[in-house]
Amino acid sequence: MNQTLLRTDEMLSDMMEHLTLGSGKNLRAMLLLVASIDSDGLVSTDAVVAAASVEILHLATLVHDDIIDDAKTRRGQHSIQSRFGKKEAVICGDYLFCIALSMIAEISAQYPEKLKEFTKAMTKICLGELRQFKHNADVDLSIHNYLKIIAGKTSALFSLAMYSGAIINGGSDKDARFMGRIGFNMGMAFQILDDCADYQSDMEVTQKCVKHDLADEVITLPLILVLLKKPELKDRMREQKLSAEEINDIITEVIKIGGVTMAVDVAKRYYLKAKKMIDTIPDQNKQFLITEILEKIWKGAH
Amino acid sequence: MNQTLLRTDEMLSDMMEHLTLGSGKNLRAMLLLVASIDSDGLVSTDAVVAAASVEILHLATLVHDDIIDDAKTRRGQHSIQSRFGKKEAVICGDYLFCIALSMIAEISAQYPEKLKEFTKAMTKICLGELRQFKHNADVDLSIHNYLKIIAGKTSALFSLAMYSGAIINGGSDKDARFMGRIGFNMGMAFQILDDCADYQSDMEVTQKCVKHDLADEVITLPLILVLLKKPELKDRMREQKLSAEEINDIITEVIKIGGVTMAVDVAKRYYLKAKKMIDTIPDQNKQFLITEILEKIWKGAH
Repeated sequence: MNQTLLRTDEMLSDMMEHLTLGSGKNLRAMLLLVASIDSDGLVSTDAVVAAASVEILHLATLVHDDIIDDAKTRRGQHSIQSRFGKKEAVICGDYLFCIALSMIAEISAQYPEKLKEFTKAMTKICLGELRQFKHNADVDLSIHNYLKIIAGKTSALFSLAMYSGAIINGGSDKDARFMGRIGFNMGMAFQILDDCADYQSDMEVTQKCVKHDLADEVITLPLILVLLKKPELKDRMREQKLSAEEINDIITEVIKIGGVTMAVDVAKRYYLKAKKMIDTIPDQNKQFLITEILEKIWKGAH
Repeated sequence: MNQTLLRTDEMLSDMMEHLTLGSGKNLRAMLLLVASIDSDGLVSTDAVVAAASVEILHLATLVHDDIIDDAKTRRGQHSIQSRFGKKEAVICGDYLFCIALSMIAEISAQYPEKLKEFTKAMTKICLGELRQFKHNADVDLSIHNYLKIIAGKTSALFSLAMYSGAIINGGSDKDARFMGRIGFNMGMAFQILDDCADYQSDMEVTQKCVKHDLADEVITLPLILVLLKKPELKDRMREQKLSAEEINDIITEVIKIGGVTMAVDVAKRYYLKAKKMIDTIPDQNKQFLITEILEKIWKGAH
């Protein structure tokens, strides 16, 4: 992935170098690679290219997301938009999309009819982003719509990664779709736990709340569940922009009333659904490796 | 194209409806269709889908361009960024990219190895945009770099359109590349003439200069040629942001010194190159139709 980023036109080299400084968890690449493992325990070059392209696709969405959320930091570094400017970030994201697609085009000649899955997933991600943005500061956001948002913005790519891995390994469309559904459930569990972690980490380091989802007016499951129990909180939140102090108060309340615990319970349902499906994978080695990633998601985030 | 735009998720319907209000010249679609005409004078459904997708791809670049240039209007309507906001415009452009790619994926199963041409063209467009943006207000922009900019931002898609049309018509890669080169030259002529028209139209309607390329700090060929003759003009332009009056003065000077006439001469070279190539096309009907578009570009714009 870094090799590809650093092999770009010199006009973009500053931004691309900057992007290689921060590193993500590479969950999407890992899922693709694991889903593509053959019976000898090997992965093909195509799978490696596809894995890098999925991560670059993800990176493209992050770069554009940071414009939409006015995010200052990303992966422990300045975001592209804060370091280089919003306009540069628009082009940078577009360029990353192009590179990712070029890589996919490079390998997709063998699986031409599968390409639609990529464009479908990309469309879902766009819609997820838009849905999240439209529901910014919406204290009436329903659980249903929250799940729709994260299904688009996160699970679509998790699902695509595992689907593609299976296809590259020569799996049937049916088998690949099964893998895709495992990816979908893992994505849902991951995103809910990530949204929970956002509440928990803030309690540990005070003032970090400026970086909290709530400061970006993003409403997530722990809060939604608390607002259902205590609708009077909504009125407090409806009043204009929340101060740092008010955000801290709300975070504390969400945890006290059990919003995080309840949200983790919802995540657990997706975790268990994924686990049950993974347990039916005939290849023991593959089953073991996918379970390892699932457990990492489950333990890592809460 | 409009059918596709209006068939989108209801979250995007306002933006998509807005986009159908303005209409472009559809040159790229026309070129693709004409290049795809078979010996009976017919075009296939695939060609129609590809033509719409090329226009939607173009529209995606315009939506993101308008963010980068802070453009208020586009095709006689408010730009997406001015009507709906910059953040919405980021998502809108991404979504249009996704739709365009979905359409291409839909038809590309038959030409899997050709898909690379699409991603290559998209990458070139991105680089062209970035190069233009990097050279904003650069009075030392060379003819060479100007040509590189427009080769990316305009000719890459013209070339892709004609290449794709030929491939869809079952042409060999060699024949399709020849068509692509015709498209390239037509794109170069078109963009230079378009940049000339920007100088001429401003003389007719005063105060329109706020919409002029120069107001966006975009330096184009007529000015570059004048600056080569009269480098002392550069100093005047280097001082901070130009006022509307100063912009008007510079436009008048560019025309007086013959910048537009000289630029048209450069465009003519591309026009003649294209014409010479078109004259060798064996299919008379196709030759006639492509020549018609070439003449339309040549006469329409200056």
